[in-house]
Amino acid sequence: MSRLVEQFERLPGIGRKSAQRLAYYVLQLPQKEAEEFAQAITEAHAKIHYCKVCCNLTDQDLCPVCRNEARDKTVICVVEDPRDVMALERTHEFKATYHVLHGAISPLGGVGPEQLCIKELLDRIQAGGVQEVIMATNPTVEGEATAMYISRLLKPLGVKVTRLAYGIPVGGDLEYADEVTLTRALEGRSEM
Amino acid sequence: MSRLVEQFERLPGIGRKSAQRLAYYVLQLPQKEAEEFAQAITEAHAKIHYCKVCCNLTDQDLCPVCRNEARDKTVICVVEDPRDVMALERTHEFKATYHVLHGAISPLGGVGPEQLCIKELLDRIQAGGVQEVIMATNPTVEGEATAMYISRLLKPLGVKVTRLAYGIPVGGDLEYADEVTLTRALEGRSEM
Repeated sequence: MSRLVEQFERLPGIGRKSAQRLAYYVLQLPQKEAEEFAQAITEAHAKIHYCKVCCNLTDQDLCPVCRNEARDKTVICVVEDPRDVMALERTHEFKATYHVLHGAISPLGGVGPEQLCIKELLDRIQAGGVQEVIMATNPTVEGEATAMYISRLLKPLGVKVTRLAYGIPVGGDLEYADEVTLTRALEGRSEM
Repeated sequence: MSRLVEQFERLPGIGRKSAQRLAYYVLQLPQKEAEEFAQAITEAHAKIHYCKVCCNLTDQDLCPVCRNEARDKTVICVVEDPRDVMALERTHEFKATYHVLHGAISPLGGVGPEQLCIKELLDRIQAGGVQEVIMATNPTVEGEATAMYISRLLKPLGVKVTRLAYGIPVGGDLEYADEVTLTRALEGRSEM
């Protein structure tokens, strides 16, 4: 029992009490469901790996976006995390492809460029056909540094590098926007 | 006592219980402090009025921004609310002037253009010397409609009309950005 609790406790956002609650829940599951649960974990680990092209997670050679003939392969949107791909897919507006870095450069966190899927991105661009790379790393210090680093690598390859717009979020309130965001929104103003 | 409670209850965000708590607090104040409180309310009403130029609140003819010789008078930033002026002033980056509309056009809320300080804005621009008007109304449906409405009035006057950038707020996380904001951030991307 304590081994099971310990396993649950390792999950992010789960403390000792929650882990115990989850462990008791799993114990009282019917044998069949518990086995399905265990199997789902093992199978996910065995089958899910990086997409050969964009490094997103997939259980096939290529992820659904890279497999899709209708997607515009001349534009690559670079994100830190597979969850960012999901966020961008939810907009239903982005019809091109992604590249997942699996992190951001963080000297304090001990993450250097070689630990990210940057080489794979360079390979894609050197293979030709890419016109624009949109840097969609997070609007944080690390995300910004990663975007700058990759942008410097890409520019000599003759590809257009763009960055997501900073500004006020839609539906928000100016009064509650932070100073840096307001400054960026003023700098980035466009003619109506 | 119940009259005092009723008065407090009219304040935004104050319910019956809070109003009672505040009323009791005021009652137990020393006579002098209670009088100062009452006087502050009366005086504010008597002395504070709209700035003659920008319609911001002030106790003089002109507000501190309009009085300041160093501010760039050729650019006007149009906001809905005096609190938005405070938010923009906190950035310490904006060195031009403001115009406070005191609301946004809202057909459902019964607010039409004639209830806002739009005439005063047109007067300022017709007086000459203004090169750019930055529409900094809130990124909501009402704010957007107000920006569009004013922009249509201003364009025939030959003045440049711009809008604050929409996009991801600085320091945020792509994963938690809503779909509309992400779409705007993608549309508004700029070359690095």
